Amino acid sequence: MTEEEIARLLREYKEGNVAEAEAVKAIAEAPFEEMRFAEVDHHRELRQGMPEVIYAAGKTPEQVRDIFYSLYTHSKGNLLATRADRSHYERVQEKVPAAVYDETARLIYLDRDTRITRDAAHKILILTAGTSDIPVAEEARLTAYLFGNCVETCYDCGVAGIHRLFAHLPAIKAANVIVVIAGMEGALASVVGGLTDKPVIAVPTSVGYGASFHGVAALLSMLNSCAMGVSVVNIDNGFGAGALASKINKLR
Amino acid sequence: MTEEEIARLLREYKEGNVAEAEAVKAIAEAPFEEMRFAEVDHHRELRQGMPEVIYAAGKTPEQVRDIFYSLYTHSKGNLLATRADRSHYERVQEKVPAAVYDETARLIYLDRDTRITRDAAHKILILTAGTSDIPVAEEARLTAYLFGNCVETCYDCGVAGIHRLFAHLPAIKAANVIVVIAGMEGALASVVGGLTDKPVIAVPTSVGYGASFHGVAALLSMLNSCAMGVSVVNIDNGFGAGALASKINKLR
Amino acid sequence: MTEEEIARLLREYKEGNVAEAEAVKAIAEAPFEEMRFAEVDHHRELRQGMPEVIYAAGKTPEQVRDIFYSLYTHSKGNLLATRADRSHYERVQEKVPAAVYDETARLIYLDRDTRITRDAAHKILILTAGTSDIPVAEEARLTAYLFGNCVETCYDCGVAGIHRLFAHLPAIKAANVIVVIAGMEGALASVVGGLTDKPVIAVPTSVGYGASFHGVAALLSMLNSCAMGVSVVNIDNGFGAGALASKINKLR
Amino acid sequence: MTEEEIARLLREYKEGNVAEAEAVKAIAEAPFEEMRFAEVDHHRELRQGMPEVIYAAGKTPEQVRDIFYSLYTHSKGNLLATRADRSHYERVQEKVPAAVYDETARLIYLDRDTRITRDAAHKILILTAGTSDIPVAEEARLTAYLFGNCVETCYDCGVAGIHRLFAHLPAIKAANVIVVIAGMEGALASVVGGLTDKPVIAVPTSVGYGASFHGVAALLSMLNSCAMGVSVVNIDNGFGAGALASKINKLR
Amino acid sequence: MTEEEIARLLREYKEGNVAEAEAVKAIAEAPFEEMRFAEVDHHRELRQGMPEVIYAAGKTPEQVRDIFYSLYTHSKGNLLATRADRSHYERVQEKVPAAVYDETARLIYLDRDTRITRDAAHKILILTAGTSDIPVAEEARLTAYLFGNCVETCYDCGVAGIHRLFAHLPAIKAANVIVVIAGMEGALASVVGGLTDKPVIAVPTSVGYGASFHGVAALLSMLNSCAMGVSVVNIDNGFGAGALASKINKLR
Amino acid sequence: MTEEEIARLLREYKEGNVAEAEAVKAIAEAPFEEMRFAEVDHHRELRQGMPEVIYAAGKTPEQVRDIFYSLYTHSKGNLLATRADRSHYERVQEKVPAAVYDETARLIYLDRDTRITRDAAHKILILTAGTSDIPVAEEARLTAYLFGNCVETCYDCGVAGIHRLFAHLPAIKAANVIVVIAGMEGALASVVGGLTDKPVIAVPTSVGYGASFHGVAALLSMLNSCAMGVSVVNIDNGFGAGALASKINKLR
Amino acid sequence: MTEEEIARLLREYKEGNVAEAEAVKAIAEAPFEEMRFAEVDHHRELRQGMPEVIYAAGKTPEQVRDIFYSLYTHSKGNLLATRADRSHYERVQEKVPAAVYDETARLIYLDRDTRITRDAAHKILILTAGTSDIPVAEEARLTAYLFGNCVETCYDCGVAGIHRLFAHLPAIKAANVIVVIAGMEGALASVVGGLTDKPVIAVPTSVGYGASFHGVAALLSMLNSCAMGVSVVNIDNGFGAGALASKINKLR
Amino acid sequence: MTEEEIARLLREYKEGNVAEAEAVKAIAEAPFEEMRFAEVDHHRELRQGMPEVIYAAGKTPEQVRDIFYSLYTHSKGNLLATRADRSHYERVQEKVPAAVYDETARLIYLDRDTRITRDAAHKILILTAGTSDIPVAEEARLTAYLFGNCVETCYDCGVAGIHRLFAHLPAIKAANVIVVIAGMEGALASVVGGLTDKPVIAVPTSVGYGASFHGVAALLSMLNSCAMGVSVVNIDNGFGAGALASKINKLR
Repeated sequence: MTEEEIARLLREYKEGNVAEAEAVKAIAEAPFEEMRFAEVDHHRELRQGMPEVIYAAGKTPEQVRDIFYSLYTHSKGNLLATRADRSHYERVQEKVPAAVYDETARLIYLDRDTRITRDAAHKILILTAGTSDIPVAEEARLTAYLFGNCVETCYDCGVAGIHRLFAHLPAIKAANVIVVIAGMEGALASVVGGLTDKPVIAVPTSVGYGASFHGVAALLSMLNSCAMGVSVVNIDNGFGAGALASKINKLR
Repeated sequence: MTEEEIARLLREYKEGNVAEAEAVKAIAEAPFEEMRFAEVDHHRELRQGMPEVIYAAGKTPEQVRDIFYSLYTHSKGNLLATRADRSHYERVQEKVPAAVYDETARLIYLDRDTRITRDAAHKILILTAGTSDIPVAEEARLTAYLFGNCVETCYDCGVAGIHRLFAHLPAIKAANVIVVIAGMEGALASVVGGLTDKPVIAVPTSVGYGASFHGVAALLSMLNSCAMGVSVVNIDNGFGAGALASKINKLR
Repeated sequence: MTEEEIARLLREYKEGNVAEAEAVKAIAEAPFEEMRFAEVDHHRELRQGMPEVIYAAGKTPEQVRDIFYSLYTHSKGNLLATRADRSHYERVQEKVPAAVYDETARLIYLDRDTRITRDAAHKILILTAGTSDIPVAEEARLTAYLFGNCVETCYDCGVAGIHRLFAHLPAIKAANVIVVIAGMEGALASVVGGLTDKPVIAVPTSVGYGASFHGVAALLSMLNSCAMGVSVVNIDNGFGAGALASKINKLR
Repeated sequence: MTEEEIARLLREYKEGNVAEAEAVKAIAEAPFEEMRFAEVDHHRELRQGMPEVIYAAGKTPEQVRDIFYSLYTHSKGNLLATRADRSHYERVQEKVPAAVYDETARLIYLDRDTRITRDAAHKILILTAGTSDIPVAEEARLTAYLFGNCVETCYDCGVAGIHRLFAHLPAIKAANVIVVIAGMEGALASVVGGLTDKPVIAVPTSVGYGASFHGVAALLSMLNSCAMGVSVVNIDNGFGAGALASKINKLR
Repeated sequence: MTEEEIARLLREYKEGNVAEAEAVKAIAEAPFEEMRFAEVDHHRELRQGMPEVIYAAGKTPEQVRDIFYSLYTHSKGNLLATRADRSHYERVQEKVPAAVYDETARLIYLDRDTRITRDAAHKILILTAGTSDIPVAEEARLTAYLFGNCVETCYDCGVAGIHRLFAHLPAIKAANVIVVIAGMEGALASVVGGLTDKPVIAVPTSVGYGASFHGVAALLSMLNSCAMGVSVVNIDNGFGAGALASKINKLR
Repeated sequence: MTEEEIARLLREYKEGNVAEAEAVKAIAEAPFEEMRFAEVDHHRELRQGMPEVIYAAGKTPEQVRDIFYSLYTHSKGNLLATRADRSHYERVQEKVPAAVYDETARLIYLDRDTRITRDAAHKILILTAGTSDIPVAEEARLTAYLFGNCVETCYDCGVAGIHRLFAHLPAIKAANVIVVIAGMEGALASVVGGLTDKPVIAVPTSVGYGASFHGVAALLSMLNSCAMGVSVVNIDNGFGAGALASKINKLR
Repeated sequence: MTEEEIARLLREYKEGNVAEAEAVKAIAEAPFEEMRFAEVDHHRELRQGMPEVIYAAGKTPEQVRDIFYSLYTHSKGNLLATRADRSHYERVQEKVPAAVYDETARLIYLDRDTRITRDAAHKILILTAGTSDIPVAEEARLTAYLFGNCVETCYDCGVAGIHRLFAHLPAIKAANVIVVIAGMEGALASVVGGLTDKPVIAVPTSVGYGASFHGVAALLSMLNSCAMGVSVVNIDNGFGAGALASKINKLR
Repeated sequence: MTEEEIARLLREYKEGNVAEAEAVKAIAEAPFEEMRFAEVDHHRELRQGMPEVIYAAGKTPEQVRDIFYSLYTHSKGNLLATRADRSHYERVQEKVPAAVYDETARLIYLDRDTRITRDAAHKILILTAGTSDIPVAEEARLTAYLFGNCVETCYDCGVAGIHRLFAHLPAIKAANVIVVIAGMEGALASVVGGLTDKPVIAVPTSVGYGASFHGVAALLSMLNSCAMGVSVVNIDNGFGAGALASKINKLR
């Protein structure tokens, strides 16, 4: 409830249009639409500049379909369901035929927001260390794109052949925000962090084997980066990185 | 070496002012000043918009003094040594008497950069969950301040008495970047992340006991935040959070 | 063996109705019914106010059927088998056709105890952070219900949209015991703990990915809760939370 | 802000005693007293049935003194500062000479609340496995006592000599809530949990060496208890156990 | 090479029956039969009082068959292959039709050693906490039996209903060596360890969920046992416990 | 309470020498002597063949003195306090001047039991990998000695110079029970386990640095020993190894 | 870019054959061939003495085929794709029919380099502790062979029957580099390290169960080896060990 | 015992110069000199090309002195005691006045071996990421030097300012073996590994804080290096790296 809304309510109450009990209740409770399994937050679009995103993992295809459709009809923004598999998508399509499924990124999305203009002077750059990191990178890229950003990518430029990274120096220098995605030892985040004065969002991936411990090695590596300006999101959390990059990229 | 510098070198070489061997060498090697124990990077100030920061832990007081003094004479920016104890400070003072020591934040600094103008319309807000998190918060605050930002703080507004956090909603709404500092279960990051559409930098602290495992509980909590737009730096890394907040806050 | 039973035995012995060897044996050994694979504890119903609950995981369908049937014929209370899959249920149904299977909660149960009256003035409230936590919550809800309690639920009210939690403040204030079920960062337990003076039982779930480590992040978060009055049960242990909530809720 | 307070405010506003801006502000913000380093929550005493407890670790003696004194003058209840050392106490005594220090439990407290009557029919029983667990047990005992409960203790009755535990069966049967405190393998919680139908709060302690990992072995053991009705608080968290036991013990 | 064998070789050499080069070689190298994939140790039966046991996991059915058959023809003792699945067994049967497969214990064995007489006065007792621990227990039981011991079992006597354990006190007192097998919190080992002055071999099992971490909770619990005389083998290592119990049981 | 004692009590009750209430009470409770801080178990000497051992760590010098003295006057066996420092000893000496302190092993003991005859045909052998493992080995040696065993030691025979271990083959072959004590990678346990058919008790020590993690590397190594007949006690638990070795060594 | 190449470029520029912008660009960027998903490094063969190796895991069969074919046409050396399954191989065969697949080692390779002469005086010896370690050993063996080395193997010579290892002492003495591959407790590395003055590369394998934690026990064991000259690669990293052994073996 | 020594013994025995029992004994046992606390291996100098090195940590100053002196008198090579503090040194000096103490590297050594000639064409290069890694690097440098190698160092060239590393490319290219020493995220090992075709020995250091976990982050990072030819030694194990580098560097 914004201060403006409170003021309006007070005035309505004073004028007798709203009963005391009603006013008390309105103040004590925030608005939400009740469904059997989830309370969708239609206010978030205004409050956070983007619609609620659906985390599909652990939800039934029917639940994802219903929430997606509810958001589809209540908002005008782009829609996004993450960690979705094909069975989720098949159900969503029943109600929102225009929805698209990206198998690599495991995203169901609807790219419909006509209010968006992408600012080419403020680019998000997404770098990966290897080819195997691409699914996470695509999740980040599509997320940032749907949230209204220009996104550029350079995949497979890990530090073991550092000249390949240096071929992308112009792109690194030109970016406003950089997302670095790497598994194994995650060293790319530190090297990139030392080459730029822009914020770097590091995403450890579960790529690797043995003592990579499903991304823990890269996670620790990135948290301990000796480069200034590097922060970290959860292992394989391409969506989180894309959403945060968007938030940062939209600051003026 | 910037492209401009390469171009200038090429022309000097063409005009015969620079011998071939010299040009080859200049291209193959980056500039650095050799000291016995450390190679200080005087170019960083231009490249990253801030002078090199000294990580004092593990260095002798003499080493910190000499690097600090070298930076003092080679740059015009503010200076900063982190994780410093009083013995480091005593030596630094010998050569840079104007340096200040903040015991809580364990920082030695010199606030001298007259080129800085702080932009009050772009504030960094630093929140802590408890009183014990203040040393880390002060490290972040001073860092962000020395890097040229307006910084505001609200300390001790953890989630167990959530009305106290809500008293700071206006400050949260007004901030451009938010740093959330919490130990124990680190829940503050998620709650704040849900209340703002600005980027949130979460700093886990080693405050707590038992199964907090010196900050691991808060770290994991923050990495798994269900709120969008939260990224994490290392445990107790107030400096890192402050520097990153500054980088983000200066984006236009 | 209660003191009363010992006294009775002593008197029987004194009167010669029980031989010495028999009395010695009776004192040295507790009663149990021997089956090939398990010794069912028929005394527990009286001792603990509820029949023995069967942990089905790791038992064959035949074993679960036989224990379930043995409890069915030896007690009058409600029956419950946890962590059961459909193959367990099919066998149980052969002998106890009235048994019900709840697939979400993975429970086989028999709701037959006519001695139970549920006290509406002492409610157990079960909250979940997300939709994916519902299976664990349903395990807790059904358990508490079968043990004779009034149970209320509010699902999907995590801290990232905290106004949704606040819509349930009246239910929180009205509850006698609260069970908070959350995966990812598990912050809901701390926030709820700060809003109530009733005991809070926190259940971490394995919902999440990457650095959630199958519930470890939520577990640590909850163990380190800065709120007073929060205790924790094992990851995904909905049954344990429901049973403990019942024990607490029945105190007078 | 309770519903009653909102109603009162609305009426005052309607009658013109409160200006609109003022009313809006009052609604948007919760009450708190600002101090430089901490915002003390004077409302908690009513909301949670007990005054705010001070976590002294990480606070300076001066901070603890000032918060303690502020609570002393603003409330009428008992006061408690946990994890306090003698230097904290010396400062507290300057302003609250009646305050007492318990070195074993590391508590500073003031036992002054004349409104308390302890209910001997609802006892909290505290059991420890060994002599070395006593400091944690004393923290729990004093906490529960200051919150207005009858508390009984049986120390050093670990499972390696189980007849010693059985000597306390009458006390176990008579208790309303049981706190079990154990380090090493923490097996006592499971054994006691099997002997009672009352709730058991398990506190792992950091007592032990080697693979006890400062309480982790006991913590895991207790979380995996095969007994029904056992929940766990943080390692060495005697205060948390005492406070929770009190909350449970006061349910009617 | 025993001292006796060395002596014999020396004499043969002295008498000229063995050339110098040959004697040097014989001394420098130990006997072994070469196969493509494994070097079977036929001397172990004499050296360790039992034939080599085959660890089938990670070996192909053909490898297990060939080693089993090689042992079958070279020794007279009982034979044992652990961690074997049915496909291993099918191949072994081709060459050793008398071999038996125990599915629960995952053992292939041949019980043929006529030299064995089992000593009923020296019994090994195997206890399990729950029904789910039985596969590990059966692996231990069969191992100890095949190595020539009298073995007794009491399954499902965990500490949550401690009277069920006490029903087996006579068996506990009568045993020469006790194997305690438990998952979850593993408390049974400590309780049994306190009831006997015989050695206790504790086997943690991976039974449990959540924070049992596939047996780590039980493992740590057992390593930290407060009872004297308890040692631990690897998680789920029923074979190891059975073999060690046999070694201890045969000491005179 | 033995069956014999129960029988005697029954007869006394029948003859009227013992009242019913008294008999009931006697049956329900086991004997123990109450002291303020600890309940000493005087029956253990008979039940376990050795007096209770005092774990001094975490106990005050006064507590250790009083328990030691109580055991001194109530039993005739050898006495032992483990993990004791000099301050414990000074107090013990006040009441038991004959007590001895071994600084390396951190043991206070009294070697007075004249009933002991050590059996030279059943030796316990204690091996250490390095010189730094000697304190743990001495704790094991003295424990086993005081419990009435012949003990032999070979220190510093780690596997990196395996010929040094082989020099002790005769001692290994002659031993009845072997204790292997090693830090770092703990490989000695596996090698010795392969050389003997006697039980091997492995003790990991916290000797090492870096990735030895205070004994965890050795602990895991020993738990995973590929040799048959190796079991493990807690890190640095020399006492536990000595006591278990004694239990095993006394089996006939 | 080598110094020679820079010099040549400078001269071309001076002579006017290369424009300034072009020269600047050439200096700033390293050579690479762009493909959609990967940038293959054709320079590595010269720089590292071997062609780029493809890590197939996480790549689609089409990606592996295209990279393999690209390397096939651009280089003359042997080719190698690691962690490949049969589906990768089927696609590779489409374009490079001469490629071979080794199922045990999970390698696709092409053994065609006619420039290689293997030096029999500099052998690499690969030892495994057990039969289950063979797949990792074969990966190492084939790698080292394809890189141009003489390789010898001794499989299944773990420390539990140490005479089997000693049978290979002549091979150990003759080797120039030794690779030791072991799971479970990994003790073989330390024993071999003590028997040779040549470098030992230790490879922990995920062979084992329970507290082997998928190779962590062996990894820690090897990192803490008390033997001098042992270093470690990642768990199951047979390729890494083979490649490193080759690099070391080729030093002169 | 070499084959030659065996042959000689056989002949002596045949000729009657050695009795049978004596010969048997000589064969069964390896030579060693007995001291009370340690068995020094005087044969290692020949077998491993270097004298035994003393690991001083955990040894008393007297023990270190006696072993050092024993080596001093029995060998002609350089001597080295690692992890030594000043108190060790003071005692060593009593008997070997020429011994030197390096406080940074914590080494006591004697540089006396006149047989050594250092080969300038085969250099070991030691790189550190930061100034704080220097103590470990000095331990490696001195070790490699005393073992007879030419050693070069470049300290403080971490990846955050990667141009500083590139200034050392000529040294990297010239080295025969490279030791990379880094704490925090340890990324330097991967970057260097990608720049060279020589073997790289990576040493993680405990430099860092928070989630560096005393070197674990760097350790995991290095084990997962995406660069070929990198192996790892224990955290802070400068000695191990220096010794291994020497072994590799001496291969011809």
